[in-house]
Amino acid sequence: MKEIEGGVTSPKGFKAAGVFAGIRKKKKDMAMIFSEVPCIAAGTFTTNIVKAAPVKWDMEMVKKSPFVQAVVVNSGVANTCTGATGMGYCRDMAVTAGLNLGIPTEAVLVASTGLIGKQIPIDKIKTGIENLVPILGSSKEDGIMAAEAILTTDTRKKELAVEIELSGKKVIIGGMCKGSGMIHPNMCTMLSFITTDAAISKELLQEALSTDVKETYNMISVDGDTSTNDTVLLLANGLAGNHEITEKNEDYEKFAEALNFVNTYFAKRIAEDGEGATSLFEVKVINALTKEQAMKLSKSIVSSNLTKAAIFGHDLNWGRILCAMGYSGAEFEPDDVDLYFESSGGKIKLIENGIELIYSKEAAEEILSKPEITVIADIKMGNQSSTAWGCDLTYDYVRINAAYGS
Amino acid sequence: MKEIEGGVTSPKGFKAAGVFAGIRKKKKDMAMIFSEVPCIAAGTFTTNIVKAAPVKWDMEMVKKSPFVQAVVVNSGVANTCTGATGMGYCRDMAVTAGLNLGIPTEAVLVASTGLIGKQIPIDKIKTGIENLVPILGSSKEDGIMAAEAILTTDTRKKELAVEIELSGKKVIIGGMCKGSGMIHPNMCTMLSFITTDAAISKELLQEALSTDVKETYNMISVDGDTSTNDTVLLLANGLAGNHEITEKNEDYEKFAEALNFVNTYFAKRIAEDGEGATSLFEVKVINALTKEQAMKLSKSIVSSNLTKAAIFGHDLNWGRILCAMGYSGAEFEPDDVDLYFESSGGKIKLIENGIELIYSKEAAEEILSKPEITVIADIKMGNQSSTAWGCDLTYDYVRINAAYGS
Repeated sequence: MKEIEGGVTSPKGFKAAGVFAGIRKKKKDMAMIFSEVPCIAAGTFTTNIVKAAPVKWDMEMVKKSPFVQAVVVNSGVANTCTGATGMGYCRDMAVTAGLNLGIPTEAVLVASTGLIGKQIPIDKIKTGIENLVPILGSSKEDGIMAAEAILTTDTRKKELAVEIELSGKKVIIGGMCKGSGMIHPNMCTMLSFITTDAAISKELLQEALSTDVKETYNMISVDGDTSTNDTVLLLANGLAGNHEITEKNEDYEKFAEALNFVNTYFAKRIAEDGEGATSLFEVKVINALTKEQAMKLSKSIVSSNLTKAAIFGHDLNWGRILCAMGYSGAEFEPDDVDLYFESSGGKIKLIENGIELIYSKEAAEEILSKPEITVIADIKMGNQSSTAWGCDLTYDYVRINAAYGS
Repeated sequence: MKEIEGGVTSPKGFKAAGVFAGIRKKKKDMAMIFSEVPCIAAGTFTTNIVKAAPVKWDMEMVKKSPFVQAVVVNSGVANTCTGATGMGYCRDMAVTAGLNLGIPTEAVLVASTGLIGKQIPIDKIKTGIENLVPILGSSKEDGIMAAEAILTTDTRKKELAVEIELSGKKVIIGGMCKGSGMIHPNMCTMLSFITTDAAISKELLQEALSTDVKETYNMISVDGDTSTNDTVLLLANGLAGNHEITEKNEDYEKFAEALNFVNTYFAKRIAEDGEGATSLFEVKVINALTKEQAMKLSKSIVSSNLTKAAIFGHDLNWGRILCAMGYSGAEFEPDDVDLYFESSGGKIKLIENGIELIYSKEAAEEILSKPEITVIADIKMGNQSSTAWGCDLTYDYVRINAAYGS
């Protein structure tokens, strides 16, 4: 597997575009992904009971539609808590896109992200769709335009493409995602759009995605708030010409590994670009008895407000980490825990068997001053491990969220 | 029942004191409560697997000790994650207090609050205990000294006393508590010390307390972090002379009602004085099918970082409230929800059947500008309700917690 420059337009036959439709202030706010040929689609969606209209639409289409061929996205307004009117507007988006692209309404998936509770400006959005279709293109620049148009409080676009070889054919997986606040995915994820030219059965495409999100997007947290709009869509159009993957053979493993690489990359980029964040906070729990135990512990630490504030302050308040492990719901023996801090500034062991060691405060502060901080908790019970990603809790998180709706 | 001026020293036979022992910088940091006669004790403690040494001590003593007669408390250091040495120091506190008071070691309960992971300065603490014993007194001022000495990042002391009549005798319940950060009690609570001169069996004393904390302390959240030191102790010395309560009769109901009044008061004061808070944030979920459902929903809203930041910004971002209800784990129908905001500035209905109403933004902002804000969510499923309390998420929360350990 190798990383290549690009994003959703990198796999064969995929086009994209991004435009300013007047929903947000002066920023691109509508994107489209289009495949020249029909795709099979897999999706994972928020477990929040309050679901956005486009989430409901996509859940139905991914399940029922024989094929899909386009995704239309707006940022600025979430189309959540908008009732029957909002559901109608969501359908209007699919209808308008289908008419302009010459494909069935049911072949159009929809995503919205932004403020909850306001109706989307459907006239602007229809015009946006009409403006998107003629400029769809397959270049890197077209992918970048789309990746920029799906952002809200994100400070940077998030794109990736990787290349693998399956049955002698070059297969590409590309993607783009967004996510910065209201990030605490649960059996689901943020807005993430992955395209591939691999030939693979719909059943295995969904299985590869569903398995992978548990260890990627579901292991990140920015603020503990599980969004109403979380969506990952994975579109496969088969144009790579590989033997279609219809069983869990070596090709499936290669595809799943590449997909994991892409999703892990995006999960980390979302965490790192958490609202107001100054650092990526990575937590590894090692030597657990079970994977589930390791995941509970790492997710609990990475979600702790007190720990996140301490990371922001470059403050060695490790007791908060033990505290967060203690209320995680996972069993472990506090008196056996070893704790390490690691970054490009070095690695230091702070705790051995639950007790603080003597260490250089200067060395520890040097480690904490870097933009990517890793905490490693060794619980000495088995050989399972888990990694979770988050970010620090900063003044800017409060600033951004004290005024977002106004 | 009537509220009277006072605190832990208000019930007959209870004395208290507070001193500066040199643990914190220039602030009183040690307190003692003493009953002239033996008491029965009830307690509820943190469910965090990582438990402070004094929590372990108290859990054992409340269970095993035939009677208790004193509580010794230090602030500044938590005596958590301190291993066998810390457990020994905790015992030393009880031994020293017992010797100086002339009571058995097992009749002394201990509580510590502050930074996790550092050993307590046992010599200073022993001297503190020696200084506390001779100045124990039963006046309101003595109670105030104790209430001040248990604080950490709290900005104000928290005291209350109420008077009830049981079998023709005046019975008093008094208390003091602290709590400001690492507040998200779970089947347990913060440091809260309640004294009473009621005569009541140990079994009913514990039952009254255990039942009540579920709807009081367990319904508050400042930051989602369940502490390692949460402790509520309830001491009853029987000096009021009422017929001992040994069954769930009318007297028990009166006592339980008064206890609920005291614990609700303290829960609200802890929430309101959350680290960095500028407002008390109250959430009422009404017309739920079950109490448990109402509690899950109200606690989820009050714990949402995004909602708390919006309250700080006086921002009507009600979608975050629906979102937090949606990921609470409780079932409900989003399209049936009515939502109200209420404060001393008025009451306004924002949402009806899940959809935003037209309302005056000025009127809503006037309501949100008050120091106590209530959100009411009517889910129209039954007749159960629940109230939770929290506070806003502010720049000061981040400031306080980015540097607490340094």
